[in-house]
Amino acid sequence: MMDRKVLTGQQIVVTAGKLNIGGDNPPVMIAGPCAVESREQVMETALALKEVGVDILRGGVFKPRTSPYTFQGLGLKGLQYLKEAGERIGVPIVTELMDEKNLDAVVEYSDIVQIGSRNMYNYSLLKEIGGINKPVILKRGMSASIKEWVMAAEYIAAYGNKNIILCERGIRTFEVYTRNTLDLAAVPIMKCETGLPVIVDPSHGTGHRQLILPMSKAALACGANGLMIEVHIDPKKALSDGQQSITPEEYQKVYLEINKL
Amino acid sequence: MMDRKVLTGQQIVVTAGKLNIGGDNPPVMIAGPCAVESREQVMETALALKEVGVDILRGGVFKPRTSPYTFQGLGLKGLQYLKEAGERIGVPIVTELMDEKNLDAVVEYSDIVQIGSRNMYNYSLLKEIGGINKPVILKRGMSASIKEWVMAAEYIAAYGNKNIILCERGIRTFEVYTRNTLDLAAVPIMKCETGLPVIVDPSHGTGHRQLILPMSKAALACGANGLMIEVHIDPKKALSDGQQSITPEEYQKVYLEINKL
Amino acid sequence: MMDRKVLTGQQIVVTAGKLNIGGDNPPVMIAGPCAVESREQVMETALALKEVGVDILRGGVFKPRTSPYTFQGLGLKGLQYLKEAGERIGVPIVTELMDEKNLDAVVEYSDIVQIGSRNMYNYSLLKEIGGINKPVILKRGMSASIKEWVMAAEYIAAYGNKNIILCERGIRTFEVYTRNTLDLAAVPIMKCETGLPVIVDPSHGTGHRQLILPMSKAALACGANGLMIEVHIDPKKALSDGQQSITPEEYQKVYLEINKL
Amino acid sequence: MMDRKVLTGQQIVVTAGKLNIGGDNPPVMIAGPCAVESREQVMETALALKEVGVDILRGGVFKPRTSPYTFQGLGLKGLQYLKEAGERIGVPIVTELMDEKNLDAVVEYSDIVQIGSRNMYNYSLLKEIGGINKPVILKRGMSASIKEWVMAAEYIAAYGNKNIILCERGIRTFEVYTRNTLDLAAVPIMKCETGLPVIVDPSHGTGHRQLILPMSKAALACGANGLMIEVHIDPKKALSDGQQSITPEEYQKVYLEINKL
Repeated sequence: MMDRKVLTGQQIVVTAGKLNIGGDNPPVMIAGPCAVESREQVMETALALKEVGVDILRGGVFKPRTSPYTFQGLGLKGLQYLKEAGERIGVPIVTELMDEKNLDAVVEYSDIVQIGSRNMYNYSLLKEIGGINKPVILKRGMSASIKEWVMAAEYIAAYGNKNIILCERGIRTFEVYTRNTLDLAAVPIMKCETGLPVIVDPSHGTGHRQLILPMSKAALACGANGLMIEVHIDPKKALSDGQQSITPEEYQKVYLEINKL
Repeated sequence: MMDRKVLTGQQIVVTAGKLNIGGDNPPVMIAGPCAVESREQVMETALALKEVGVDILRGGVFKPRTSPYTFQGLGLKGLQYLKEAGERIGVPIVTELMDEKNLDAVVEYSDIVQIGSRNMYNYSLLKEIGGINKPVILKRGMSASIKEWVMAAEYIAAYGNKNIILCERGIRTFEVYTRNTLDLAAVPIMKCETGLPVIVDPSHGTGHRQLILPMSKAALACGANGLMIEVHIDPKKALSDGQQSITPEEYQKVYLEINKL
Repeated sequence: MMDRKVLTGQQIVVTAGKLNIGGDNPPVMIAGPCAVESREQVMETALALKEVGVDILRGGVFKPRTSPYTFQGLGLKGLQYLKEAGERIGVPIVTELMDEKNLDAVVEYSDIVQIGSRNMYNYSLLKEIGGINKPVILKRGMSASIKEWVMAAEYIAAYGNKNIILCERGIRTFEVYTRNTLDLAAVPIMKCETGLPVIVDPSHGTGHRQLILPMSKAALACGANGLMIEVHIDPKKALSDGQQSITPEEYQKVYLEINKL
Repeated sequence: MMDRKVLTGQQIVVTAGKLNIGGDNPPVMIAGPCAVESREQVMETALALKEVGVDILRGGVFKPRTSPYTFQGLGLKGLQYLKEAGERIGVPIVTELMDEKNLDAVVEYSDIVQIGSRNMYNYSLLKEIGGINKPVILKRGMSASIKEWVMAAEYIAAYGNKNIILCERGIRTFEVYTRNTLDLAAVPIMKCETGLPVIVDPSHGTGHRQLILPMSKAALACGANGLMIEVHIDPKKALSDGQQSITPEEYQKVYLEINKL
């Protein structure tokens, strides 16, 4: 069915700094704000996460927004804040790359490069990412089929980069109660089809703060190699996605429950 | 948003024989063939399940099939076989009711009555089921929204029967790799919205035998009160849904893995 | 792909009273209120439609509603009002049948029997309808595939009734702007696959009054054999679906525009 | 609901060479091969289209393909062939731009720039396109909501370019009979919401050659300002999308039928 030459299903472990992701390694916890809003906000969040336990710090600095008139991210300045926060707490950082223009800057500052849902079909960008020497998180397109997602990863791999972490973040369906429908069956399927580590984003995957804990547990139970969770020091004041962000205190609860498993 | 008078979210524990389903009770295991095909087949399956461990025996005798020319089930004769098998291994049975015509017979023989996905919107049938004194498994319609599913349960409850077990069985999306997209976020949502127990059918929910184990674990991890799994003594010869049925040996593996949790 | 014995694609013209539907016959106009609300309302609507031009009078008397606590229709009394109004203006009537219980009454009073979207998978009801000697309008299930819809018609035909009019009424997708996504490609496909006449319901198909005219024109342009339109004398006071109902004056505008084609 | 500053619904007529698109102008016919495969193929196609009647010549030279191992287009060489063919028959050309890297070349050679379905959410590219002085065809994302599509157009307009032609090309649904579900209700909706011309692509919108004629008629009947049709001199040998391409002879039939309206 799928024409693959590189990602044939053989297990691949991705390395980011001292972290090993995939295989039998323990699941990684990626957390941080949807968007870097200020130096203080990201540093405060990072320090709070450090208290609890976090493996990778996330934060968006280029934000793909439906409206051209809403907050579009702090850009490179935000990336420097994120980098500083990551170094302060001693963990790698990840941010989303939206275009080739910012490739060099993102590669320079970020330990892991994220390709967001809206760019999963951006084959020009995938080819460029295939040429870099950094791990990549490839989010599933919001209505991408399993086959298309596998082949998007194959694009990156075919152009030279096999350090790919897949991220299930929910698909678009008729259901309106949740922001997206989290397709957890994709976890064992993608692991089997590609051999790559697969993580889950329950924040975008559900859009509801109170669903993050149960869906995090479910994700790990079916084999996810990690979680990506939106944490904000004050979700009500978040410039984007506040509804699905949790506080560091709520994050601690998720962290402890998960570590019991 | 939803106009409910009976199912307001307060926890309801459903009783079937000696079994208590929902609340803090351990998850129930419902297993058996998609269709009762013969006396021998259902008896043999039942005995094999008994060896491993099973709480409720399932089997379809009226089969809703897309084509009028494929096997439509054994009807009442099949129900008698199922009843006999259930009594032999000492567990309650459940079968699907497709119309009011067979209501009395199904109520007489079956310990639990199942309303299938195709009948979730059959409000006339739901009202009838509201008048019986037996537990009901209400499967989610294949493209039913959370709201519609809640209200379908409310129909049954409003007509007098609160002994309802909800069953998530996957929804219809653009994805073709899996038969349906198992919407596990529906488990915590429906438990919270209705107070009813929620079980998961990973067989219909994925359509792939090898996904039954990981999705069963995920279902229980996010709070499912039980599982409904299709087991056939010889899946290759099954008259329906062989591809998603597992053998009693494979069922044992699922059972043991789950009991470890 | 599809296992058909009766509906093999050969053209079938359905007869209802003096009306011939399908083939090269001119498109039929079916109009009337979503629900029969009172004797006066249906009579007044019928007379207004008569002024403009109408081929079949529609009106729901058993209403499948998401909530058990909203208006469920006037039942048999409503059917008598509808019959009286149809006779008064000299056109056949159509109403939806929701269960076998009311089969005899509906067959006695109604010239055409409608199977609604929620009952397209109700195979027990389809078999019963296969045994009657009246034309049937079979609406597409809200998430029914082309194949399933073809086979639902084949159920009715296999049990003896080939007088089937198919009705495209929109499918459920991720889009929330419209109530449903009107799938007009289904018109030429279903005509070709089954040979049956296909009509279109732009009222349910879009959920927006102002889309009824353009989508009616589009439906006829791709070969629809008729239209089913919700008309209410006072849409703002309608007990159901007021938002997608048009007044007799607006209906006249649609009627005139269409007759120009 | 939608935060727009430029596209507020007031009618915009787009000019491409001597062509006026939108408003009360007659519908434009855009035709040509899915992909430019050779100088001969595109020239031969162009001359055949000229015989029948065509307003704009289309052809892909950068092809977004699901697999990295299938034909990716001829690139700039293909664009020169397309330009040459367009000049020979005296009509403007349109080709898809996939990334900023090729922006200058595409703007230099192509009269109209197309943003394909996979790039509708590529906001970086939309902003760049906002800065050019050429008409743009903005295809709807394959699962883009009406709102997202409106806002994608607003991105281009907000960055300075209001010469936008919207193109409905089908959305992704559960239906597998057609390649996509052509959402024709989007035609009157988008015209009303944005004031921009809206064209329809029945080739991608259905994926079936025999549906192109009926859906072209339906598109124009509900107000489409033009059609974009894939024509290949030998569809069986096409390097991409042969199944939905028609021959110049079949195109003539569509052209004549449409001109009758």
